[in-house]
Amino acid sequence: MTQAVRHDSMRARNLEVVLGEVSRNGPLTRAALAELTGLTKSTVSKLVGDLVDAGLLAETGPARAGERGRPGVDVVLSGARIASLGLEINVDYLAVRVLDLTGAVRFAARRDRDNRGSRPKKVLAELQALAEEAITEGRRLGLDLAGAVLAVSGPVGDGVLFSAPNLGWQDVRAADLLRLPVPVELDNEANLAALGELWYGGGERDFLYVSGEVGIGAGLVVNGELFAGPRGLAGELGHVVVAPDGPACRCGGSGCLETYAGQEALLAAGRTSTVADLLAGLDRGDQVALDACAAAGRALGVALTSAVNLLDLDHIVLGGVFTPLYPWLAESVAGVLAARLGGLRAAPPVLTASRLGGDAATLGAAGRVVHRVLADPAPFLVRAQEA
Amino acid sequence: MTQAVRHDSMRARNLEVVLGEVSRNGPLTRAALAELTGLTKSTVSKLVGDLVDAGLLAETGPARAGERGRPGVDVVLSGARIASLGLEINVDYLAVRVLDLTGAVRFAARRDRDNRGSRPKKVLAELQALAEEAITEGRRLGLDLAGAVLAVSGPVGDGVLFSAPNLGWQDVRAADLLRLPVPVELDNEANLAALGELWYGGGERDFLYVSGEVGIGAGLVVNGELFAGPRGLAGELGHVVVAPDGPACRCGGSGCLETYAGQEALLAAGRTSTVADLLAGLDRGDQVALDACAAAGRALGVALTSAVNLLDLDHIVLGGVFTPLYPWLAESVAGVLAARLGGLRAAPPVLTASRLGGDAATLGAAGRVVHRVLADPAPFLVRAQEA
Repeated sequence: MTQAVRHDSMRARNLEVVLGEVSRNGPLTRAALAELTGLTKSTVSKLVGDLVDAGLLAETGPARAGERGRPGVDVVLSGARIASLGLEINVDYLAVRVLDLTGAVRFAARRDRDNRGSRPKKVLAELQALAEEAITEGRRLGLDLAGAVLAVSGPVGDGVLFSAPNLGWQDVRAADLLRLPVPVELDNEANLAALGELWYGGGERDFLYVSGEVGIGAGLVVNGELFAGPRGLAGELGHVVVAPDGPACRCGGSGCLETYAGQEALLAAGRTSTVADLLAGLDRGDQVALDACAAAGRALGVALTSAVNLLDLDHIVLGGVFTPLYPWLAESVAGVLAARLGGLRAAPPVLTASRLGGDAATLGAAGRVVHRVLADPAPFLVRAQEA
Repeated sequence: MTQAVRHDSMRARNLEVVLGEVSRNGPLTRAALAELTGLTKSTVSKLVGDLVDAGLLAETGPARAGERGRPGVDVVLSGARIASLGLEINVDYLAVRVLDLTGAVRFAARRDRDNRGSRPKKVLAELQALAEEAITEGRRLGLDLAGAVLAVSGPVGDGVLFSAPNLGWQDVRAADLLRLPVPVELDNEANLAALGELWYGGGERDFLYVSGEVGIGAGLVVNGELFAGPRGLAGELGHVVVAPDGPACRCGGSGCLETYAGQEALLAAGRTSTVADLLAGLDRGDQVALDACAAAGRALGVALTSAVNLLDLDHIVLGGVFTPLYPWLAESVAGVLAARLGGLRAAPPVLTASRLGGDAATLGAAGRVVHRVLADPAPFLVRAQEA
């Protein structure tokens, strides 16, 4: 290893340390940063200067000419330079969202459309148009696109969406069908929504995020990190067995949670064809709709009992369609959890509705890029210098 | 931070790096170690010398007077100094095991006895006697006791065994009832057995270890590390719901796996009172015994289906009483997994019997101390110098 490489790697590490401190604990003065990081004040000043020049940090307070770099001035994350793009293909809509480095939403758009039984190429072409809108707007705001992540409802591995039964897709390299100025990463919607909830939601560091859609997925966050399993396929809550002799499931099994509490099962039990109709029925106290939710809630409670026993959960966040349905689901879910877990745990897990609702997945998708830049800012300094 | 502290912490880190390389990749020469670690040859020589003096490393090949420290000689982990003590309270026996730093078993003892409905004090007094035997033997071999870990069948947190229904114990600080020359750490048997399997068993780095006893626990290993959940209560496979309207479980729920495949349920279905009798029946082809295993295997298959969906498992190891019963369980477990997971995963998970059988928990318990010494050897150098 040459001296030059050693120096670069130390500098990259120090840039990360300084940016990380500001991200977690900012605003901070250069002096406070030196104290927190153990780096010398002159090293901190140089690093902060470079990060300010690159548009990753900004000085707060009135900046006057010739006073740049005053040691008593606070520095904060800057939203001026980095753009991250979150994309989502949902059964009912397409969505895009642009975040800056501070996590502020700079652009968001959503197109309602029915993607059931659709052709991947057609859907991705529409998403491409939406993404181009977002990128154009980002450019207009002076932002540099640092990366993009696409959320899809189904298990993902090595860039392949293995199956999205709600869309009728199988083995689709969905991200590869987009032509964007940065590579697009593909991941599971429930995992990304869980990260959205972690970074921009309730502030819990240990929870299971449940995504109720046609399928039911889940994203597990442990100590502030996503647990996705060795192949990224963890969290298939929809195929946890509720009753082994229950209704046939399209997975080939029977009695899976999805056959009781998936969107189609719920709507069938509620004798409606849309979630909006079901919600309207619930609002006016329709007994069929209420019974459908109570039954789905009991099945969800059984599956979540198994999940709590296996995963040691203290907090469960209900997302997707379970967020608007929460007032009519919560009691039966919580009732089952309390009855079944009372003898095993000091307290049954806390149940809440997602605060982000349908925004969770694109927030998590774009947030992943933000967190990647924060964890390794060096490449973005190089690009700023080259530009 | 003073210079002296900085120096000590760098030295501690370097000792760990050198010991870790030898542990993973030894035997190694000092030159190879310098290459692997990026440390200078003189630093490596000093560190290796100190580790050899402390009895943590040894030189291989014929050692001749005056030739100590020859640069071309291989160094390996030494079994001469460190002893780690693994202890286990099982429903049917007490066990102790002494490992040295190389993982070699230097002493093991087991006392068969029925601990059902026992008083903790009485059981711990017997374990104390067994532990003293182990420590005396360790001393006779010239070993220093570095630590001790006690495995118990039930959920553990903050040194408390919350409940061990097979023993009839509740909220017992079991390790505190032992008086040993080192502090004793308490942990769950299934978690420790999973670590035993990881370190001294099949060599897999991702698997679920299932411990079949009166209760059914599980230990999840992901990428070579135990996943115990935020409170250490993960892996309660015995209370995963197999059928919500199934038999009442002592946890207050119903239809938990334990009510179908726990030792008591198995023996009742097999119309025997001991596992030995059940095995004898299976050996002679007794239909009642065969049916009992097939039914337990199907329930285990359903619960493991839920576990695979939630945890993304490629490998399941059956331990505890499921190890000797494996030949009569495997087919029905694997059949359910294949039928229910075929549509969701490229291949159903591989099912194997534990290679360690009843030794897994004490191996994991003692192994945890070994791995702690390998990860932070500095305190053991200080003690050797003081002695």
